[in-house]
Amino acid sequence: MDAITQPPVIRLHPEDGVVIARQVLPPGTPVAPNVVAATRIPAGHKVAVRFHAEGEPVTRYGQIIGFTTEPVPPGHWVHTHNLAMGDFARDYAWGVDARPTDYVAEPATFQGIRRPDGRVATRNYIGILTSVNCSAHVADLIAQAFRRNPLTGEDPLAEWPNVDGVVALTHKTGCGMTQGEPLSLLRRTLGGFARHANFSHVIGIGLGCEVNQIGGLLEEQRLAGRLRSMDIQEMGGSRKTVQAGIDFVREVVAEANRVTRETVPASELCVALQCGGSDGYSGITANPALGAASDLVVRHGGTVILSESPETYGAEHLFTRRAVSQEVGQKLVDVMHWWEDYTSKLGAEMDANPSPGNKLGGLTTILEKSLGAMAKAGSTNLVDVVRYAEAVTQRGFVFMDTPGYDPVAATGQVAGGANLLCFTTGRGSVFGCKPTPSIKLATNTPMYERMVDDMDINCGTIVTGEETVQQVGERIFQHMLRTASGERTKSEEFDFGGAEFAPWPMGATM
Amino acid sequence: MDAITQPPVIRLHPEDGVVIARQVLPPGTPVAPNVVAATRIPAGHKVAVRFHAEGEPVTRYGQIIGFTTEPVPPGHWVHTHNLAMGDFARDYAWGVDARPTDYVAEPATFQGIRRPDGRVATRNYIGILTSVNCSAHVADLIAQAFRRNPLTGEDPLAEWPNVDGVVALTHKTGCGMTQGEPLSLLRRTLGGFARHANFSHVIGIGLGCEVNQIGGLLEEQRLAGRLRSMDIQEMGGSRKTVQAGIDFVREVVAEANRVTRETVPASELCVALQCGGSDGYSGITANPALGAASDLVVRHGGTVILSESPETYGAEHLFTRRAVSQEVGQKLVDVMHWWEDYTSKLGAEMDANPSPGNKLGGLTTILEKSLGAMAKAGSTNLVDVVRYAEAVTQRGFVFMDTPGYDPVAATGQVAGGANLLCFTTGRGSVFGCKPTPSIKLATNTPMYERMVDDMDINCGTIVTGEETVQQVGERIFQHMLRTASGERTKSEEFDFGGAEFAPWPMGATM
Ligand SMILES: [Ca+2]
Ligand SMILES: [Ca+2]
Ligand SMILES: [Ca+2]
Ligand SMILES: [Ca+2]
Ligand SMILES: [Ca+2]
Repeated sequence: MDAITQPPVIRLHPEDGVVIARQVLPPGTPVAPNVVAATRIPAGHKVAVRFHAEGEPVTRYGQIIGFTTEPVPPGHWVHTHNLAMGDFARDYAWGVDARPTDYVAEPATFQGIRRPDGRVATRNYIGILTSVNCSAHVADLIAQAFRRNPLTGEDPLAEWPNVDGVVALTHKTGCGMTQGEPLSLLRRTLGGFARHANFSHVIGIGLGCEVNQIGGLLEEQRLAGRLRSMDIQEMGGSRKTVQAGIDFVREVVAEANRVTRETVPASELCVALQCGGSDGYSGITANPALGAASDLVVRHGGTVILSESPETYGAEHLFTRRAVSQEVGQKLVDVMHWWEDYTSKLGAEMDANPSPGNKLGGLTTILEKSLGAMAKAGSTNLVDVVRYAEAVTQRGFVFMDTPGYDPVAATGQVAGGANLLCFTTGRGSVFGCKPTPSIKLATNTPMYERMVDDMDINCGTIVTGEETVQQVGERIFQHMLRTASGERTKSEEFDFGGAEFAPWPMGATM
Repeated sequence: MDAITQPPVIRLHPEDGVVIARQVLPPGTPVAPNVVAATRIPAGHKVAVRFHAEGEPVTRYGQIIGFTTEPVPPGHWVHTHNLAMGDFARDYAWGVDARPTDYVAEPATFQGIRRPDGRVATRNYIGILTSVNCSAHVADLIAQAFRRNPLTGEDPLAEWPNVDGVVALTHKTGCGMTQGEPLSLLRRTLGGFARHANFSHVIGIGLGCEVNQIGGLLEEQRLAGRLRSMDIQEMGGSRKTVQAGIDFVREVVAEANRVTRETVPASELCVALQCGGSDGYSGITANPALGAASDLVVRHGGTVILSESPETYGAEHLFTRRAVSQEVGQKLVDVMHWWEDYTSKLGAEMDANPSPGNKLGGLTTILEKSLGAMAKAGSTNLVDVVRYAEAVTQRGFVFMDTPGYDPVAATGQVAGGANLLCFTTGRGSVFGCKPTPSIKLATNTPMYERMVDDMDINCGTIVTGEETVQQVGERIFQHMLRTASGERTKSEEFDFGGAEFAPWPMGATM
């Protein structure tokens, strides 16, 4: 479909009173049934499709982005001259917009692996974790003995079709580190991975003299019985430890292979939401489309985890309005205060205000800017706020405190139990997060086509007008179900997802 | 040699006026010619072997550890009751102990690889660096296509005997990071590796939208012409980039193989000093023996790099006395002040004071405790102090500011140009740091024997009395020359040294 035949505007949510100009709209351009642009509307800017009284909330993605400062007739440009935050940012309005979830009558299903404890896995890996960087190479060598080569297709595990692989997740820390939260956070992350339903068996490898002792990790994270642990110093060196690790995998692989997929309800989905390498289309295609899919996941009884705290900063009022309780809303506000304090100590800055360039591009308020990323979570109630890598136990839309940086954020979400991850990208991020499959959503068609080896879903059809946000959201939801049932993502085909394990580095490296 | 026939004391330096009790010494035990213990001396404690007047400096490893607070006759126990820091810690005494270096008449030699620019390499690798974690997996896949398997011996580069390997050095950062020093430090580290003499060719792989843009890295670090750079987004995705990387290696490997080793002077050695997994023997065997070897390196015109700033904290006065100028000494003092500030901001603590347990073990002053680690640098003048990962340009004993944590510290030293690394360990660290060979020195014989697959040199012979500190120092020096000439270390045999690349994480992860 070429530019001439494209519809002139994008509607991001059925209930929005404004739509987005796809390109510069001359006065008189139709923008809705019986509504035409009253003046020239710049590309990417908002135009009203119905009358707004003075002081009325304006929504985008179904979310308030501000309040009109004068009456705005249909067809009129909406921007800084007639839209402002008002007192909104000073009022958390706990839960005023929380609504009963509109659950579907007959939830969708997928083919999952039900573990003996009742949890549902989407993949079946054998995991190798390390307490410290000192054991990383040993862990890598064990995994390499079983590695499928994505270039040649050679697969040492070919005779075990139900085992997705042996994955070593190593890191750069574990010693020379501060006690307290930095160590707790690392242990929470490792504990979350050790318990992840997508692992059938897990080995934990330490050196022996590190700050993050395996013994302490096992105790603090209650992992006894879950983890086969080995310290290199106790085993008599690296060569013997590698051999013992390989022997262990050979010992358990037949048992690991004895799983069958069965029909399970979509309520078993726990989907991590990510964006990275954003572009001008992120906020109008892939992010709101993923938001529509998130609403479907929640309406089918499942869970979505939004994170990337710095990208919510300044717009947390949107989520406090949707919080199921003041307590939950307050946890989110506390997270934002923590970030202010943390970054100021480290000489970094939290500033989500739209820049002059953002405003030229059509973003009016801080809420609207942050909503670009926050749209991924859709429009359901905020049911819980958890710490980095903390187990997600509530069903529905949950917020987890993480940095925005993709590998660190996703590592926290997978540790929290995510069994699927959806990653929107405009520039073309390449990303995996074993043991959880990562679905990549392109915001625009040219990038999708250029990087088709890495992209799973094209959301650029919203720009061309081939599909609506809701239609792409439905397509994403169906793709989630197929992926959760075992269909490999692009990044899994190419064996991504080991290098991207990145626990949040915090505290001083000593 | 069993315990009965062991000499009762260890002399750590020929000029020391005290020696260390190997075990509990009953009164009357001979401790030096014509000197016997006057009282019971606890194990690990100091006993005077000559008369010290009140206020006289007491040395250990040839370094002042404090001043007598009363006259101390030969044979007397030296501890907190008669030894104290006095005003020592308040006086930097710039350069009062600096002495002309006693260069050897005929420097030793090794078989090195002289690069066209005159620098000498000890190894010949092809390197793959990344700007950001997002390109880590792509870098790994390129390197894996050429990886020697240390378990089977299979070697895709077998026909290129002069190429030591293709190594991917990846990391967890490069985006979501603070501008300023955190980014500069990462770029300095990557720049130092990109320029390292031990690499014949280097590829730099980026994603395309990261904070640490390859373009900026090339410009800031003046790497144009040195690095073949590729952005995944520009190349059209991960699969095409891996193929291009493999093609590049195939294109240059014959040229990389065209090197010959030639006789070069030992002054071309640039030796990084490390300790990790220390034990009670570290300060009396491997560290002072490595110090004796360091003195030989410097007397042969070469360079040693001591680091691990937190382990020098509180004892920097020892090095300011040996600084070649007040300017150099002041740089060290500034480093220590930076650490005080940094750790206090992050809620960590700098405290090198001997603990009650340390004192029971025989450590009297902060100087003596820190000297355990500082002894690795020997006794020559401090000729320069450099920032983390900064190029080391002076010959002699240089201090580089790094954390104590092994992989992070060593990464800075190799970035600074170290072409050899010596790592002392009591508990048994396993460690490599490609492209630089890492020699592992065991502090005690039982650990050496238990972990012989990982340990290169046993310094436990000092405990048993089979060798003196000086003799082991000479043995280490000869081992350095052989390793620099191409003899593989234990960690190279087992392919260590990729996972341990760990640039110092600094600043907030956003
Ligand atoms: Ca398989
Ligand atoms: Ca992100
Ligand atoms: Ca070779
Ligand atoms: Ca250590
Ligand atoms: Ca160390």
